[in-house]
Amino acid sequence: MTDQTHASRYQVIVLNGGSSSGKSGIARCLQAVLPGAWLTCGVDSLDGAMPASLRGGGDGLGIGADGTVTVGPEYRRLSNAWACGVAAMVRAGARVVLDEVFLDGADAQKRWLHALDGLDVLWVGIRCDPDTAAGRETARGDRMPGMARGQAEAVHRGVRYDIEVDSAGAEAMACAQLITEHVLPCA
Amino acid sequence: MTDQTHASRYQVIVLNGGSSSGKSGIARCLQAVLPGAWLTCGVDSLDGAMPASLRGGGDGLGIGADGTVTVGPEYRRLSNAWACGVAAMVRAGARVVLDEVFLDGADAQKRWLHALDGLDVLWVGIRCDPDTAAGRETARGDRMPGMARGQAEAVHRGVRYDIEVDSAGAEAMACAQLITEHVLPCA
Amino acid sequence: MTDQTHASRYQVIVLNGGSSSGKSGIARCLQAVLPGAWLTCGVDSLDGAMPASLRGGGDGLGIGADGTVTVGPEYRRLSNAWACGVAAMVRAGARVVLDEVFLDGADAQKRWLHALDGLDVLWVGIRCDPDTAAGRETARGDRMPGMARGQAEAVHRGVRYDIEVDSAGAEAMACAQLITEHVLPCA
Amino acid sequence: MTDQTHASRYQVIVLNGGSSSGKSGIARCLQAVLPGAWLTCGVDSLDGAMPASLRGGGDGLGIGADGTVTVGPEYRRLSNAWACGVAAMVRAGARVVLDEVFLDGADAQKRWLHALDGLDVLWVGIRCDPDTAAGRETARGDRMPGMARGQAEAVHRGVRYDIEVDSAGAEAMACAQLITEHVLPCA
Repeated sequence: MTDQTHASRYQVIVLNGGSSSGKSGIARCLQAVLPGAWLTCGVDSLDGAMPASLRGGGDGLGIGADGTVTVGPEYRRLSNAWACGVAAMVRAGARVVLDEVFLDGADAQKRWLHALDGLDVLWVGIRCDPDTAAGRETARGDRMPGMARGQAEAVHRGVRYDIEVDSAGAEAMACAQLITEHVLPCA
Repeated sequence: MTDQTHASRYQVIVLNGGSSSGKSGIARCLQAVLPGAWLTCGVDSLDGAMPASLRGGGDGLGIGADGTVTVGPEYRRLSNAWACGVAAMVRAGARVVLDEVFLDGADAQKRWLHALDGLDVLWVGIRCDPDTAAGRETARGDRMPGMARGQAEAVHRGVRYDIEVDSAGAEAMACAQLITEHVLPCA
Repeated sequence: MTDQTHASRYQVIVLNGGSSSGKSGIARCLQAVLPGAWLTCGVDSLDGAMPASLRGGGDGLGIGADGTVTVGPEYRRLSNAWACGVAAMVRAGARVVLDEVFLDGADAQKRWLHALDGLDVLWVGIRCDPDTAAGRETARGDRMPGMARGQAEAVHRGVRYDIEVDSAGAEAMACAQLITEHVLPCA
Repeated sequence: MTDQTHASRYQVIVLNGGSSSGKSGIARCLQAVLPGAWLTCGVDSLDGAMPASLRGGGDGLGIGADGTVTVGPEYRRLSNAWACGVAAMVRAGARVVLDEVFLDGADAQKRWLHALDGLDVLWVGIRCDPDTAAGRETARGDRMPGMARGQAEAVHRGVRYDIEVDSAGAEAMACAQLITEHVLPCA
């Protein structure tokens, strides 16, 4: 009963932001802060599911020497199938925090709007200025340099959000709490 | 055209085996050897998606000091939703190698049969004797000791397979090639 | 020549801070910002070098259910030998950023003062209040909950620093730049 | 006392083999099987210690599109200092299993002979034919394809061993047990 009272009306929380903007940390904090159990998935889990043959450009995902990411047709096709899978997971009763990078901005959102059709989705923009994101990329040390700076603004182009948080000036947990306030009716 | 000729009639390949039996390596080799692009997912990706609160026993996944794994009701509920998601991914056009541990043997298979209803599934048993699996657990060094031995035989109880491979006497690539021979019509 | 002018007189930079205070990120940023090539090592590399038998309490490292860390005699003995190794690495010409957790505060510093005898060491305290550190622990999701809070203040007890930075209010890169200003003579 | 009886006269066990030959697994099994506590370190820990600036060719480590590895002068200089550190660790009382890739065969061994001067060293060759190593590279999925095949034979050129094991036909644990028989006097 209590659980119901505090339950979120949202079934999916989409976090969109560039590489090293702090999305994954915010996603894990949301899992800790939101009432009930939420799954998290996103670009990193999709990437781990892809065959090695689609991680070297061409038909697959290409990462240039300057960190520029290109998406080939077969990678796109499998991404779309994967998105349908995520939506079905939610329709089957799982709530999901989606940790995404809209490489082509508004077009990516359109694809997700299509996949998540009929579900209650909260669209969250994770903003982080290019310099700060580039610094975090250096601090984590496991991404191709340049990716953070290149994506910082491009991923937000034309995207419409319910709420935007600036991760540059705030801890992941603080961002998660801001988002949670929007998710919960009157907690 | 050529692709069609060699295409597998299977849409899902389920690999079931105990911890440290070599499933993930076989899955990656299958991705490299099978014609076309296959996604891989399974217990490890599900586990990565779960909230930390469901990784400490109780409602979630419990790992005992002897490596025994228990599954609580909320973890089970989310697993079932996740399985529906995997099936939808396949229905939307992705072929998937599933890397699974049927902790409760035949019952787990029943749940997957239900989720994958209507899809062409190849059921593969990955056998590995308890001693060899325990040795691999030591070699990898990132699993709770005892898990491999405890699961080596239990996960196969009552499970029906199209093909079984013994990973103890063979490299992951050799196992993948054996499986591929069953998958391809007359390659 | 130019390199000499800007060269740091320090051979070792010791970063001491609790779990999830941000040391490793600062260490990687220092590697990027400091002139010349610096190696980084510390508790995590030592831990990876230890046998599994010393990761379950007793003679080894114990991690309690509340995140409390205890160090057994054999783990301590090997840590001391490892510290001698780090010092020798520096004497042989490598500059090192050391990423440490002084579990017993001043006593740990005494052991390092002994091991690093004769070397030019910059002692840096990485401060991060318990709440912020606990939030980061949640965000990273790969540490035993409670460790960050438990260590946040204890590791600084009685330790003397050349410089202290507060990582709670600053990005890793900004902390690295503050430290670099102290390291470089008049850059 | 009992410990002394079974104690190995060796202080260092050097495992040399190509990428994906199974060295790290054998090293962890040795840690589990040998009496007493042994540290393990090697190319992977050195690589983790290096600054990102030395991981992109030039002065540092270069990994070509075909998996060929080149070592620049600054990377070599730091490797040599690191080797002195490992030797000092052993002189200070730690026993070490070294997990190495002798990219330039006999020359690499000469450098280690110099660094480990005066210590009791067991030299172990980990053989794995190129096809098997390439298959394992595919199975693990985290190395540049081609590296395993390129190193499989080259790393052994001109190197003198006390014992050689063929990891292609054997589990890591079985290899560790073979090595242990040579290490222990008359167990």
